Amino acid sequence: MAPKQVNSFPSVPLKDELDIVIPTIRSLDFLEVWRPFFEPYHLIIVQDGDPTKVIKVPDGFDYDLYNRNDINRILGPKASCISFKDGGCRCFGFLVSKKKYIYTVDDDCFVAKDPNGKDINTVEQHLLNLKTPSTPFFFNTLYDPYREGADFVRGYPFSLREGVPTAVSHGLWLNIPDYDAPTQLVKPLERNTRYVDAVMTIPKGAFYPMCAMNLAFDRELIGPAMYFGLMGDGQPISRYDDMLAGWCSKLICDHLNLGVKTGLPYLWHSKASNPFVNLKKEYKGLFWQEEIIPFFQTLTLPKECDTAAKCYVELAKLIKEKLNHIDPYIVRLADAMITWIDAWEDFNPPAEAVPAVANAKKDAVPPKKSK
Amino acid sequence: MAPKQVNSFPSVPLKDELDIVIPTIRSLDFLEVWRPFFEPYHLIIVQDGDPTKVIKVPDGFDYDLYNRNDINRILGPKASCISFKDGGCRCFGFLVSKKKYIYTVDDDCFVAKDPNGKDINTVEQHLLNLKTPSTPFFFNTLYDPYREGADFVRGYPFSLREGVPTAVSHGLWLNIPDYDAPTQLVKPLERNTRYVDAVMTIPKGAFYPMCAMNLAFDRELIGPAMYFGLMGDGQPISRYDDMLAGWCSKLICDHLNLGVKTGLPYLWHSKASNPFVNLKKEYKGLFWQEEIIPFFQTLTLPKECDTAAKCYVELAKLIKEKLNHIDPYIVRLADAMITWIDAWEDFNPPAEAVPAVANAKKDAVPPKKSK
Repeated sequence: MAPKQVNSFPSVPLKDELDIVIPTIRSLDFLEVWRPFFEPYHLIIVQDGDPTKVIKVPDGFDYDLYNRNDINRILGPKASCISFKDGGCRCFGFLVSKKKYIYTVDDDCFVAKDPNGKDINTVEQHLLNLKTPSTPFFFNTLYDPYREGADFVRGYPFSLREGVPTAVSHGLWLNIPDYDAPTQLVKPLERNTRYVDAVMTIPKGAFYPMCAMNLAFDRELIGPAMYFGLMGDGQPISRYDDMLAGWCSKLICDHLNLGVKTGLPYLWHSKASNPFVNLKKEYKGLFWQEEIIPFFQTLTLPKECDTAAKCYVELAKLIKEKLNHIDPYIVRLADAMITWIDAWEDFNPPAEAVPAVANAKKDAVPPKKSK
Repeated sequence: MAPKQVNSFPSVPLKDELDIVIPTIRSLDFLEVWRPFFEPYHLIIVQDGDPTKVIKVPDGFDYDLYNRNDINRILGPKASCISFKDGGCRCFGFLVSKKKYIYTVDDDCFVAKDPNGKDINTVEQHLLNLKTPSTPFFFNTLYDPYREGADFVRGYPFSLREGVPTAVSHGLWLNIPDYDAPTQLVKPLERNTRYVDAVMTIPKGAFYPMCAMNLAFDRELIGPAMYFGLMGDGQPISRYDDMLAGWCSKLICDHLNLGVKTGLPYLWHSKASNPFVNLKKEYKGLFWQEEIIPFFQTLTLPKECDTAAKCYVELAKLIKEKLNHIDPYIVRLADAMITWIDAWEDFNPPAEAVPAVANAKKDAVPPKKSK
């Protein structure tokens, strides 16, 4: 399935280009089903909760495991920006990775089958999505024009057919859909059985609810925006970690002319989380999102912000200034966003004066890393 | 397949609500394969080209046929706005219809099969698309949230879950894709074999290439914007009739907070048109679209424009004023757009001071018609 505009896309794993980040509180037996697809890659396991608990990782995987003690030791005071007792802790893995791409997956997710009964290699599809351009400026009615058997349809502007670099690949889930607690409560038996055979670019200016269950991104292009916030222990909300990262990364992708794709690949989401527990976790977010999302929809970032990190700092300031009336938490969150960028730059010093997009277009050497 | 928010959607044909408009230059034997689905409806056949030629319509269909002599007689001097020797003449059918919905289909299109081998009833799916709301303000990653087995995902704003009225349902095509002449020339053998089982709203602010091969819309809400331009005989371009209508209708839907959906239903497009002939027809459009589309992408309409017709008149003025340098043709086109609205209002006098959206929301009585 060689995309037309990326002649050199290999079907073998690009193990030097991608890390897999998994947040967990339990033994990782689920990796057994992923073995054929994940074994070539380096895993970054972020252990949440009690650091004395032993997480069992099946033999044969190449991994680093970080528990809370490790995070505190490595980041020092800046560790305060990493959530505790919440899946949002996964973003620590994004920060310490040395690779161009991240794939992050939840440990209650398994390999799904395509309509032909074949196991879906999520990593391969995400890499294909990330290594082929996006088309955020005009919607193509046959979906991804770079896919085999598809193209740009009549009337698609020729000047836009080169596309733009893809920064985010948002994969979907069969079986248990990713619903909020109220919808879970109302539709306890609903299962997603529809395999929609499409990848598409989410148009510029449109926001979407980004779910981290099955998510890949280019950390050089958009990594600094993939901060999963302050959630869980000691915070008034949870389950908005990926939503925050989705709002911020989409805003910044739109500003930097980078693409966000959604659709394939699917995985199998096995376990519905408890809707009552979720309601408690989400409760405040259900109100706040109704104000925060319209706020994001009207934001524009200044031209001088030409990297994801600069955009993110600016965004943190705007959030602190314009949304602080919602709750004192918002100020803490905005401060943590700044701390996150500080920590990010410790580990990923910015390449000198090379904006993210130029970087992507020139296929430049990744920025040097301190560790 | 009852959508959750439209309790009364019947599975039987709504023959008093929908007309099928077919532009043609040949006998309509293709209707035989559509008989089970089209026979309940009134057909409006717009005969293009030589009016003395006899168009054979299979027995049993309820239809009106209009040739060029009829169009000239009925519209008088305003007939100048209706294209001749071009499929764009179909918009005459939109104008004389008395129904709420239009489905227009090309005569080289046949019934497609879904992945289960079942014949696809395009009319039923289009009606379902039009009678369920759209969600242009936020992208739902599981696509149409009103479809059975789907819903709004976690993080979707609750205040947007009511959706907005749907004005356009853009269906797709298996087999011969709708490519421009250059792509046809480069990929003569490409066929669309991918059945993507999805309907989605094209987000507000995003434009798309609207193809009229398999298109349905709510003529009360958006009919005046479905003008197919001056194409064909005596004009410098063809094959941009539906593109023009697509740009205008999407701009106006966005302005009026109406929805545009794309995806299902598929039909079977049988015959690739000649790419050399197409290149000649499209030639100027291939240049012009590169300027016209960015122009549309930056347009905003004044608040006072609260109906599709008012928006369209304003848009015609803007096109005349801002794009006249492209070619003298643009001025003729803009004038024809005004003539079209004059003709439209002769046949569809506007309901007094009831804006389109309020009209849709109240499910108001259709405006009276003069004939």
